[in-house]
Amino acid sequence: PASLTLWDEEDFQGRRCRLLSDCANASERGALRRVRSVKVENSAWVAYEYPDFQGQQFILEKGDYPCCGAWSGSSGHHSNQLLSFRPVLCANHRDSCVTLFEGENFQGCKFELSDDYPSLPSMGWASKDVGSLKVNSGAWVAYQYPGYRGYQYVLEQDRHSGEFHTYSEFSTQAHTRQLQSIRRVQH
Amino acid sequence: PASLTLWDEEDFQGRRCRLLSDCANASERGALRRVRSVKVENSAWVAYEYPDFQGQQFILEKGDYPCCGAWSGSSGHHSNQLLSFRPVLCANHRDSCVTLFEGENFQGCKFELSDDYPSLPSMGWASKDVGSLKVNSGAWVAYQYPGYRGYQYVLEQDRHSGEFHTYSEFSTQAHTRQLQSIRRVQH
Repeated sequence: PASLTLWDEEDFQGRRCRLLSDCANASERGALRRVRSVKVENSAWVAYEYPDFQGQQFILEKGDYPCCGAWSGSSGHHSNQLLSFRPVLCANHRDSCVTLFEGENFQGCKFELSDDYPSLPSMGWASKDVGSLKVNSGAWVAYQYPGYRGYQYVLEQDRHSGEFHTYSEFSTQAHTRQLQSIRRVQH
Repeated sequence: PASLTLWDEEDFQGRRCRLLSDCANASERGALRRVRSVKVENSAWVAYEYPDFQGQQFILEKGDYPCCGAWSGSSGHHSNQLLSFRPVLCANHRDSCVTLFEGENFQGCKFELSDDYPSLPSMGWASKDVGSLKVNSGAWVAYQYPGYRGYQYVLEQDRHSGEFHTYSEFSTQAHTRQLQSIRRVQH
């Protein structure tokens, strides 16, 4: 069963609050005004910058996140704030498959992946963008920059039937269409 | 053949300088006082915060890095500065193997990996630290936090014979012994 603990100070200090399922606004629970550190005890989770699963996404796999720097993927997109949380659906590190398409609505060149790719350009993907994608199995995280940096997007087979017709369907912030790395989520 | 281009302004603007091999101090070449954006055209590279391959390490695989936020793995360890660069040796995304040891000098519990692990705790690695490690083939990047965040350490089979007896042999900054994720380098 999924579980995660939040603290309102860095290094697992201060008040705390334990989550076992979706939480649309952590500031309404357990008197936590803010979140400064997180421990993921079970399952993989997605955290969002704003309530109701809005704003920047942050993948949180099992382990310790003692400060904001531990969940923010890149210094260019610093976020102090995590306000909503949910477990990732259907992550399967051994059996995951995703198809990338160059154009929107599953048009143009495509490429099927079943392994992690820290550099899509290195794999031969000519474009800096991905127009649309289909998750055939498992759960994935796609990133703006090579090496799993920059904006993060969690993509699950069990959400939207795994179909993302345009960039805006997988981004919750929509600042850029760039995707330069992608990997499987580990439960 | 390895190649990488540096610019002294963000978004690939300003003066530029192209590297084809090891460069111990970029500020002594091509009149670049500083590095603000990078394109990796071929091979994977490691960049360092200070001259002579000292300070924080940053893995740079093929792709575009338009600003500091694109290479810094985490907002907690912001580095504006890249001053030395070298190609990564022997990266092999399909055939890589590393053994982690709980204690220094290859003592204690061990675990052999040949796949990427965004969460070592999730894999069953009980400790937050790794005491020593042997790279049996390929090149790897290990990270302080889960999900490939925080301090980065490049580990190659062809350097130190792939043997890292203590934390200080693979870290060039030695702030912490924590390793919570590890992955193969992609050429």
